[in-house]
Amino acid sequence: MTTIQVHCELRFDVRAPSDFALALMAANTRRQHAKHPRLAITPDSQIDRTRFDPSGHDVVRVSVGPGPLTIVYDSLVEVQPYMPPDPPTREAPFVELPGDVLSFLHPSRYCQSDLLGRFAQQTFGRFGPGFDRVTGICNWIWEHLSYVPGSTDASSTAIDALVGAAGVCRDYAHLGICFCRALGIPARYVSGYAVDLQPPDFHGFFEAFLDGEWYLFDATRMVPIDGLVRIATGRDAADVAFAAIVGSAELVTKDIVVIDVDRTGPPDPSQTPALGTA
Amino acid sequence: MTTIQVHCELRFDVRAPSDFALALMAANTRRQHAKHPRLAITPDSQIDRTRFDPSGHDVVRVSVGPGPLTIVYDSLVEVQPYMPPDPPTREAPFVELPGDVLSFLHPSRYCQSDLLGRFAQQTFGRFGPGFDRVTGICNWIWEHLSYVPGSTDASSTAIDALVGAAGVCRDYAHLGICFCRALGIPARYVSGYAVDLQPPDFHGFFEAFLDGEWYLFDATRMVPIDGLVRIATGRDAADVAFAAIVGSAELVTKDIVVIDVDRTGPPDPSQTPALGTA
Amino acid sequence: MTTIQVHCELRFDVRAPSDFALALMAANTRRQHAKHPRLAITPDSQIDRTRFDPSGHDVVRVSVGPGPLTIVYDSLVEVQPYMPPDPPTREAPFVELPGDVLSFLHPSRYCQSDLLGRFAQQTFGRFGPGFDRVTGICNWIWEHLSYVPGSTDASSTAIDALVGAAGVCRDYAHLGICFCRALGIPARYVSGYAVDLQPPDFHGFFEAFLDGEWYLFDATRMVPIDGLVRIATGRDAADVAFAAIVGSAELVTKDIVVIDVDRTGPPDPSQTPALGTA
Amino acid sequence: MTTIQVHCELRFDVRAPSDFALALMAANTRRQHAKHPRLAITPDSQIDRTRFDPSGHDVVRVSVGPGPLTIVYDSLVEVQPYMPPDPPTREAPFVELPGDVLSFLHPSRYCQSDLLGRFAQQTFGRFGPGFDRVTGICNWIWEHLSYVPGSTDASSTAIDALVGAAGVCRDYAHLGICFCRALGIPARYVSGYAVDLQPPDFHGFFEAFLDGEWYLFDATRMVPIDGLVRIATGRDAADVAFAAIVGSAELVTKDIVVIDVDRTGPPDPSQTPALGTA
Repeated sequence: MTTIQVHCELRFDVRAPSDFALALMAANTRRQHAKHPRLAITPDSQIDRTRFDPSGHDVVRVSVGPGPLTIVYDSLVEVQPYMPPDPPTREAPFVELPGDVLSFLHPSRYCQSDLLGRFAQQTFGRFGPGFDRVTGICNWIWEHLSYVPGSTDASSTAIDALVGAAGVCRDYAHLGICFCRALGIPARYVSGYAVDLQPPDFHGFFEAFLDGEWYLFDATRMVPIDGLVRIATGRDAADVAFAAIVGSAELVTKDIVVIDVDRTGPPDPSQTPALGTA
Repeated sequence: MTTIQVHCELRFDVRAPSDFALALMAANTRRQHAKHPRLAITPDSQIDRTRFDPSGHDVVRVSVGPGPLTIVYDSLVEVQPYMPPDPPTREAPFVELPGDVLSFLHPSRYCQSDLLGRFAQQTFGRFGPGFDRVTGICNWIWEHLSYVPGSTDASSTAIDALVGAAGVCRDYAHLGICFCRALGIPARYVSGYAVDLQPPDFHGFFEAFLDGEWYLFDATRMVPIDGLVRIATGRDAADVAFAAIVGSAELVTKDIVVIDVDRTGPPDPSQTPALGTA
Repeated sequence: MTTIQVHCELRFDVRAPSDFALALMAANTRRQHAKHPRLAITPDSQIDRTRFDPSGHDVVRVSVGPGPLTIVYDSLVEVQPYMPPDPPTREAPFVELPGDVLSFLHPSRYCQSDLLGRFAQQTFGRFGPGFDRVTGICNWIWEHLSYVPGSTDASSTAIDALVGAAGVCRDYAHLGICFCRALGIPARYVSGYAVDLQPPDFHGFFEAFLDGEWYLFDATRMVPIDGLVRIATGRDAADVAFAAIVGSAELVTKDIVVIDVDRTGPPDPSQTPALGTA
Repeated sequence: MTTIQVHCELRFDVRAPSDFALALMAANTRRQHAKHPRLAITPDSQIDRTRFDPSGHDVVRVSVGPGPLTIVYDSLVEVQPYMPPDPPTREAPFVELPGDVLSFLHPSRYCQSDLLGRFAQQTFGRFGPGFDRVTGICNWIWEHLSYVPGSTDASSTAIDALVGAAGVCRDYAHLGICFCRALGIPARYVSGYAVDLQPPDFHGFFEAFLDGEWYLFDATRMVPIDGLVRIATGRDAADVAFAAIVGSAELVTKDIVVIDVDRTGPPDPSQTPALGTA
């Protein structure tokens, strides 16, 4: 088990009355426990907290008026990802897939897996099934893509990243999801926090469903699996924006600190303000 | 209430052991009741019937060996779509949307609503809110698109149809969904049967969420709202294929008969075989 | 005849030995005469000046080493666009088109006219032929698109602008070309300078071939036709980049002054430096 | 030198008065001589034969009324492609490229080379320059793509083929052109005939400009270089359609026979009619 300290502070300049949907709190799952979560929104606002189906994370909605808006989230998160000693060498056959897993085989906005069937089959068909195949996919992506901030934007798809041979964490995850689904392996997007990410930011990775369980993968090789904190799960990035805004507001600063407490000790709280405005 | 007789008969030539996921049975909802449903699969096979989350329809999965495969579905379906005397003039604001409705605001594989925000706003922003706006969207689509079988294919998106100015029912629905979502109105795809469709086939239409309820719309103007039978609901056509096949099989014939019993009387069963091979 | 004073000054930071292909000098054609053109490249470099076929403008190629690079172009340009008192009401039929015009009917990188046949026909088919039809196209584009710097980038196509309902001069021209070609009217891209453009920059517009002559059109409505100075002509923006660079260099400043001499008098040369670094 | 017998017979059903632009006659170049060319159009029509700039082949235009239309072309073509004993190990630097070659560096409708810069660099950057690099590109394409008739259509681009990992000769050529241009090597599309192609059809291949000369390449590996007959040259397939039709007509049959006379002897003319209607 890893204990991870998460601090996230967002400042917005709200220009007109706006509704925010926030997905930035660590999820509570069988394998992750968020202790002492604290979400502070200034100015004080009425918060609606709703379960986002089918993925199961909570979406926080808040309506705010014009002016500065500050959102601060803190928690100590215990994570224990599913990493069995013997990785699965089997992919659940189609008829065995649970009903709530089926939709993660379908193509989605940024993961047009229906277009990549032949590409995936000829590139990864020869790999052993299960964990080996998805690992092979991650290795291929890591070799094919260059990590280039600014090479893609919010409307870029997995195929854009494949063609452009570049992307950021979101694109690495999308492409992994694409290839998995194209091969009949259910896969979904996970937004989250990641220990010691440089530069500090939200992170995106993915899960593949193998032999009855979801397994985490991160093709960027930036963070070990047990340094990942899950916020939200969805078909792709379209489902898990950290802040969806209906109205008019601009993100002014985003300060994120994610630390493995066991390894580095907890952050000195007196220093948190010094993180300042990026 | 309308009573609709549905007969659907599919014949496949299965070339290798294959898994089928079928979504062709009328759904049971608050507003639709499928009486005496009968699903016959020949040769006799073990059937798995699973709820597809989150949309709530059942997916029937079956594993079959090589050879001919026949699937016959029959039911008498009572439908009573939600059509209040005073159509809603209000669109639920974002903070009021139920949690299970939120994902129908997100862009999806065939409905890239994120790309159409400005187009939708300038074309439909001036319409009155609610039913009028979605009706305005349907009218615009009907005027802009030509119904041309073969003009689009399984990988075509709403934007392909918009640019090509042509499509089939699926494209009309995708474009309607796109524009709604781009305007902040949740919208989803519905696959189904339609009374007296010419030529007989499965049909696709859509629902928009207005002021607390889902409303059916069909921009093709081919069928009245109370002539539509719902099979499945999803983000777009990617979620509701009538037959998804893992393996190798070819659809040989597809015979569909959908009749408004009250208006025309039930079909003479002795004639059904004569529908023959299309 | 209009006399237009053009001043263009580009500063690059060249990071590695690089080859530049420059298309920024006013063309000499039947209807445009560039007087006293002066092209100064600092540091002094060997220049290759080559005719770019088939469009007929000159491309200046220069090889430079690392360091600062300054390119200054000045000329007094007399323009006399073809604007007959009675605009043509006829479009040359396909068999009459000169051989060197044929390729301007073909789709190109940013003008996928092959995809817009039905859209163009149903939107512009009812217009009278010739000048009226192309004017109708320009009016439609002006109404449909919002001029939004940053809404498109160097890889955006006419269809991206159509779907996004926004663009800059280049996109307005591309969409006009698209619709013309889709209707059988040869059309081509023209890069150039434009009097009093705000903010000052290079400009892009287009020409349509009607009844034996090329006619200039600018759907942005930013500049009158006789305030346009032609630099280069091509199938679309891919053919006429003001600076194509093989190597590594960054544009640091771009200062452009374009003045209608008859209307405003020549610029006071002592003030040109004050235009400074944008 | 190879002597190739070409016979091409097209039958159209013309439904309305239509203009045809035909590019199906073997070109006459420094390296190819079409002897005794015969073009017969029935019913007899007035033919306009125009040079297509800049590529230099002839386009035959003909206006026909409704009814059956038959076009027969025959020629004996001597080809002698440029195949030096020592293939070039040099790529002409940008500043050395002739003016009429420059446009073949630009992206075009089906060859969006501007999107493939990084992909091309990382995949082919390590190859030796010149002939080796382009051969490496052809080998990669041959390994990556499956030759699947019907996998692409007239609007498919090189990137569609790359993503779909399938295509036909046209797509192999487009992808080769894309990668070359992305690496700074001018490349262009060549339509033509090919000895013993199975099934008989028109063919598409490409040329790359290396060290002062154009070299033929065919990534499909279907035909040796000296079994290729050039019809037309262009930026991509958009420039060289064998029959562009303005009006309404349907191709009913297409019979093509291409034989290496030296190897197999000339075809028995009495048998040509027996090729019949495919």
